[in-house]
Amino acid sequence: MAPTPYITLNDGNKMPQVGFGLWKVDNATCADQVYNAIKAGYRLFDGACDYGNEVECGEGVARAIKEGLVKREDLFIVSKLWNSFHDPEQVEPIVKKQLADWAVDYFDLYLIHFPVSLKYVAPETRYPPGWYYDGESQLVHGKASLESTWKAFEKLKESGLAKSVGVSNYTGALLLDLFTYATIKPATLQIEHHPYFTQEPLIALCKENGIAVTAYSSMGPTSFLECDMKLAADTPILLQHELIKSIGAKHGKTPAQVLLRWSTQRGISVIPKSNSPERLAENLNVTSFDLGEEEIKEISDLNKNLKFNAPVNYGIPCYVFP
Amino acid sequence: MAPTPYITLNDGNKMPQVGFGLWKVDNATCADQVYNAIKAGYRLFDGACDYGNEVECGEGVARAIKEGLVKREDLFIVSKLWNSFHDPEQVEPIVKKQLADWAVDYFDLYLIHFPVSLKYVAPETRYPPGWYYDGESQLVHGKASLESTWKAFEKLKESGLAKSVGVSNYTGALLLDLFTYATIKPATLQIEHHPYFTQEPLIALCKENGIAVTAYSSMGPTSFLECDMKLAADTPILLQHELIKSIGAKHGKTPAQVLLRWSTQRGISVIPKSNSPERLAENLNVTSFDLGEEEIKEISDLNKNLKFNAPVNYGIPCYVFP
Repeated sequence: MAPTPYITLNDGNKMPQVGFGLWKVDNATCADQVYNAIKAGYRLFDGACDYGNEVECGEGVARAIKEGLVKREDLFIVSKLWNSFHDPEQVEPIVKKQLADWAVDYFDLYLIHFPVSLKYVAPETRYPPGWYYDGESQLVHGKASLESTWKAFEKLKESGLAKSVGVSNYTGALLLDLFTYATIKPATLQIEHHPYFTQEPLIALCKENGIAVTAYSSMGPTSFLECDMKLAADTPILLQHELIKSIGAKHGKTPAQVLLRWSTQRGISVIPKSNSPERLAENLNVTSFDLGEEEIKEISDLNKNLKFNAPVNYGIPCYVFP
Repeated sequence: MAPTPYITLNDGNKMPQVGFGLWKVDNATCADQVYNAIKAGYRLFDGACDYGNEVECGEGVARAIKEGLVKREDLFIVSKLWNSFHDPEQVEPIVKKQLADWAVDYFDLYLIHFPVSLKYVAPETRYPPGWYYDGESQLVHGKASLESTWKAFEKLKESGLAKSVGVSNYTGALLLDLFTYATIKPATLQIEHHPYFTQEPLIALCKENGIAVTAYSSMGPTSFLECDMKLAADTPILLQHELIKSIGAKHGKTPAQVLLRWSTQRGISVIPKSNSPERLAENLNVTSFDLGEEEIKEISDLNKNLKFNAPVNYGIPCYVFP
């Protein structure tokens, strides 16, 4: 298997184009999964405060380093700032806590997870704090502007706590506004991206501005079925879509590989996850074959402007999207 | 015909719920159309720098006032800041020019037209400046943050040049960010809104924050056919949709009235336009009958997350949406 290609970010740092996504990875198996993924050849790990498993991720990394499978500098560790830590003075302290959880002393990339500020919750009170301020039904917005949070991110990069900084779940208008006040442009934008939600204008904007795009939920509705999301249950599964299956059959690849290659062939990074060793290898092997231009267009034409990962789709009254 | 109801805005000002939209109203007929709309009972006029017809709108208003049909204070005149005037120091000068064009000394409501700053173009150079900086193919972004522009809007309200201030084409995330830095909340949000683009979360956010919503392009694709927009041409016409027609037939109303009532019955304002006296009266008469709750839901279920009024749909390389 060819090694995963690297993408050079706008700050000169290099990021593997295929990584392992840590959302919904069980705490009980997380350390083993990270360790096994490193064994399988994964070098990028995409985590977040909100995933609630950073300690276990760090355990998997530590085991792999201890056994000499990799060195820290071989890995590209990504984490994200949760909404309740947007106040500029909270950014550095929480990054330091997250680094301690991972047992590393820098992140390769640190992202603003969502473009919305929620009221601060102290880690001693509840961690990860999630969407709710009081653990009950109340969502309380914070007072931090996105500009003030981004300014704190620029300091993070200067301090070296994060080698690169970026954003997630931003739209075109939010990026354009950020460009008016940013000294450092985001290195990457991480977004939900699959054939039902193609967002061509946003991807064009990133290209125009040298921002690398990372796709999450590349399989579309499948990622959200385990969240009991009705919208996902009501949408045809992409992995079973006749078009995706027939393109896969033509190339001797699985539907998942077709969906991942549809992104990587256009320069977009992907962060699938899996428990099975076969699937781990299969998902990593998504840069060594090419779809036809016509096939890419056919897949893109499945677009329905269908975003699953919006708080309201989980019953959370936070109206950040659209 | 019952008089149009008024909506009380969050700053105490009152706004008619139904008005006349001035987008794409020809300069040659504009003064007459405004005058005739006043005669037909319209009191709200929704204009903008970008529509290129504010002088003619003012002529229609002046004629109606001169003939004693209305007084200035009976009217509710709305205008909008174009993208190339977002620099805070340009806001008051351009408002004064627009007021001079209308020949009035205040706007009832003044909106940020789009959440994107383009490079300043002097009115002497080109007016209205449109999406292009150099009149050719180059789009040059400006340096004004949305926060800096909104701060200038708060001053506009304080100065009385605009009795109320608001925004247009903002998304949930943009509003939430605005709330972190605003001293004065927008009185209204004007958005594209029709059964193919229902944006429930955004409307819920406005409701939660006391922001009145005004819908434009209530007929959906029809508004964009005259712009030669392929996306609109490829979409089934709402005015001929069997569901809309059958609901109209049941109530003895036209499809247009059903589409407008679908909005007004949920508290949303509308700003249709028309040339014909019959249609003018018909569009104004969209608050005096009620659809059933089930009918409203059936219409809302036509949602396709389909936004027509995005620059890329006109071939303009401005990636502000999504």
